[in-house]
Amino acid sequence: MNHRDEALALDSADPIATLRDQFALSPTTIYLDGNSLGVPPAAAAQRAQTVIAAEWGEGLIRSWNNAGWFALPRRLGNKLAPLIGAADDEVVVTDTISVNLFKLLSAAVRVAQARDPKRRVIVSERSNFPSDLYIAQGLIEQLDRGYELRLVDEPSELPAAIRDDTAIAMITHVNYRTGYMHDMAALTKLIHDKGALALWDLAHSAGAVPVDLNGVGADYAVGCTYKYLNGGPGSPAFVWAPKRHQNEFAQPLSGWWGHRAPFEMDPAYRPDDGIGRFLCGTQPMVSMALVECGLDVFLQTDMQAVRKKSLALTDLFIELVEARCSEFPLTLVTPREHAQRGSHASFEHPHGYEVMQALIARGVIGDYREPHVLRFGFTPLYTRFVDVWDAVETLREVLTQETWRAPEFAARGAVT
Amino acid sequence: MNHRDEALALDSADPIATLRDQFALSPTTIYLDGNSLGVPPAAAAQRAQTVIAAEWGEGLIRSWNNAGWFALPRRLGNKLAPLIGAADDEVVVTDTISVNLFKLLSAAVRVAQARDPKRRVIVSERSNFPSDLYIAQGLIEQLDRGYELRLVDEPSELPAAIRDDTAIAMITHVNYRTGYMHDMAALTKLIHDKGALALWDLAHSAGAVPVDLNGVGADYAVGCTYKYLNGGPGSPAFVWAPKRHQNEFAQPLSGWWGHRAPFEMDPAYRPDDGIGRFLCGTQPMVSMALVECGLDVFLQTDMQAVRKKSLALTDLFIELVEARCSEFPLTLVTPREHAQRGSHASFEHPHGYEVMQALIARGVIGDYREPHVLRFGFTPLYTRFVDVWDAVETLREVLTQETWRAPEFAARGAVT
Repeated sequence: MNHRDEALALDSADPIATLRDQFALSPTTIYLDGNSLGVPPAAAAQRAQTVIAAEWGEGLIRSWNNAGWFALPRRLGNKLAPLIGAADDEVVVTDTISVNLFKLLSAAVRVAQARDPKRRVIVSERSNFPSDLYIAQGLIEQLDRGYELRLVDEPSELPAAIRDDTAIAMITHVNYRTGYMHDMAALTKLIHDKGALALWDLAHSAGAVPVDLNGVGADYAVGCTYKYLNGGPGSPAFVWAPKRHQNEFAQPLSGWWGHRAPFEMDPAYRPDDGIGRFLCGTQPMVSMALVECGLDVFLQTDMQAVRKKSLALTDLFIELVEARCSEFPLTLVTPREHAQRGSHASFEHPHGYEVMQALIARGVIGDYREPHVLRFGFTPLYTRFVDVWDAVETLREVLTQETWRAPEFAARGAVT
Repeated sequence: MNHRDEALALDSADPIATLRDQFALSPTTIYLDGNSLGVPPAAAAQRAQTVIAAEWGEGLIRSWNNAGWFALPRRLGNKLAPLIGAADDEVVVTDTISVNLFKLLSAAVRVAQARDPKRRVIVSERSNFPSDLYIAQGLIEQLDRGYELRLVDEPSELPAAIRDDTAIAMITHVNYRTGYMHDMAALTKLIHDKGALALWDLAHSAGAVPVDLNGVGADYAVGCTYKYLNGGPGSPAFVWAPKRHQNEFAQPLSGWWGHRAPFEMDPAYRPDDGIGRFLCGTQPMVSMALVECGLDVFLQTDMQAVRKKSLALTDLFIELVEARCSEFPLTLVTPREHAQRGSHASFEHPHGYEVMQALIARGVIGDYREPHVLRFGFTPLYTRFVDVWDAVETLREVLTQETWRAPEFAARGAVT
């Protein structure tokens, strides 16, 4: 592509272009960080007012029943399920990914133990999102029974690392840094062939790429609603467990929302049948209610259309960066193969942090990830092809004019 | 009291009466269930709009730093601390009570083990809020190392139950059903004299009664922001650990928000120094931001003024029910002694469930708790003495006219 008009033409021909109207987008920003925090659905502000003024203010305690608050984790789970190849009553929206991983790893460890007590290794990748590794470390230390976390440096090392001592492979489908996407079907089959359980983290997958958890026969999954699903800052995460695993064991975060009859006030925990036992405590309803606004946009399209546009956006971004910024030390770290690419594209630059700050100062918001990585997320629901063009032009300006060398871009802060 | 005018006179003389103006109260309701879900602070609706439109919509990912989202669990913890006798950097607002109890029990078990490996009993009350017991059961089952949950039926049995085998006494300060309040200072001393750790659940205490965690030398505490603190439906809970216990052990829900340097993306968990290590995953910011609106009201009064009015309200309620409903089978289950009473009053009635439904139908919203208990919570920030009068008159009508026998009041639903 050589002209901005060509990008505009792609937008004109885009069958899901009008979904952008359903988001409250800042007019001064090209936002390429929806894989860290999605933008507000246009419906979110009004939904919050309804929850606060009508449901909370007028309905008060009655809204736990009458406004469906108590049922919301399950109802939203069912609404999210089609996006990840899950069935009804297999998903609940609740808590955080880290807390949910603890629940699933705890349950999976017991399932694995019941099958083969010798299996005491959890396999994962050193490049996994660190919190996933921290949770596995915390569980292993707590169990204090000789469990071990085995980390590989490259996806290619996974087949050798998953062995007859392996209880669980805990894999993040799309890497948060590089955008590398595993072949979920093939890796699940490999994990099962080795006699282990497959636990998937869908943080950068749900709403970004087609996922078919039941189709590939996965064992457990967690995921995030505040990235591609646009649920709001820190909106509750989700847990998936297929029906065959739901009732094998209770998980130790056995709070009252997972009880079979929470309002009987029974002093003994009796887990609910089904996915309900992965609930724990009372959920933050204002934040949770907003998750539905994001999910409702997906009802107007399907993940194949989203994926098609996603690949077109990342293809174009990679093409333009390589064509128009070729004289600068940018190295693509995202796979070129479609089958191995999620919905973001990352380039290394020796001064990645400063370059990203300079981009943000010009209204192009991507993200920086240690070390050296400029990360650009593409959310097909609201990102236009012309945004890709304009973002690359801004990147070219920042690199050509070396505006990133300004001292104010050197100080590092915390960005999730 | 014999006349409604006397209640109005008490309201006129009430030094904190005007705080009621800072809540968005339904004009058609007498709300006596603020100990289940507090009412919205008047500031909450606007605050939600600011978070959604400005912080999320305009600030986008930058708001994790620029709008102080990442720091909010600690900042709100410091704001809440004076209400419970805690110091700066001893409280974080995060997750749910159940999840936080799991963190604290896990840490406390390790502290107790380090002191004396023979101590393997967690003592609590059978009448404790069930979720607390479920979490202890879940942890004990997971540890699978001979831990035991020992439950007593009456507070008077606690001294004998806490013995040289006891690691932790997990006590809820104010009972959710009866309103019975423990003497926190005396019981903490007893627990310590027996060599155990004192873990307090402040769900029905924070914002309701004065609490002095550091003054009594307690070891750990959890609590709730959606009851007397008016944080919103399911708003995040809090964790307290005094500085002497914070760094003894990491807790197993070791997510990235508790890491010493979360944005270094270190694959190894290194817990933060201090209370930060009790954080885990990314928090729901819209719900959490609303917690501040509730806390801000407390800045305009103090817990002594709140407590004085609370006791006057519950005294009046008990007096009026016993005087004006004396011919009905109502039995007070809340202690008459001020030192043993929280901020709610409960009466048993053989048809408690139906009576409560009939009251709610007439706009007097209390709560029902199994078995047979009519529970009435009194939030001094917004409950008036005339509300007490009117509520008792409505109760008298419901009992006199036997409106509770209508068939529509017999079906039970879930109410948290």
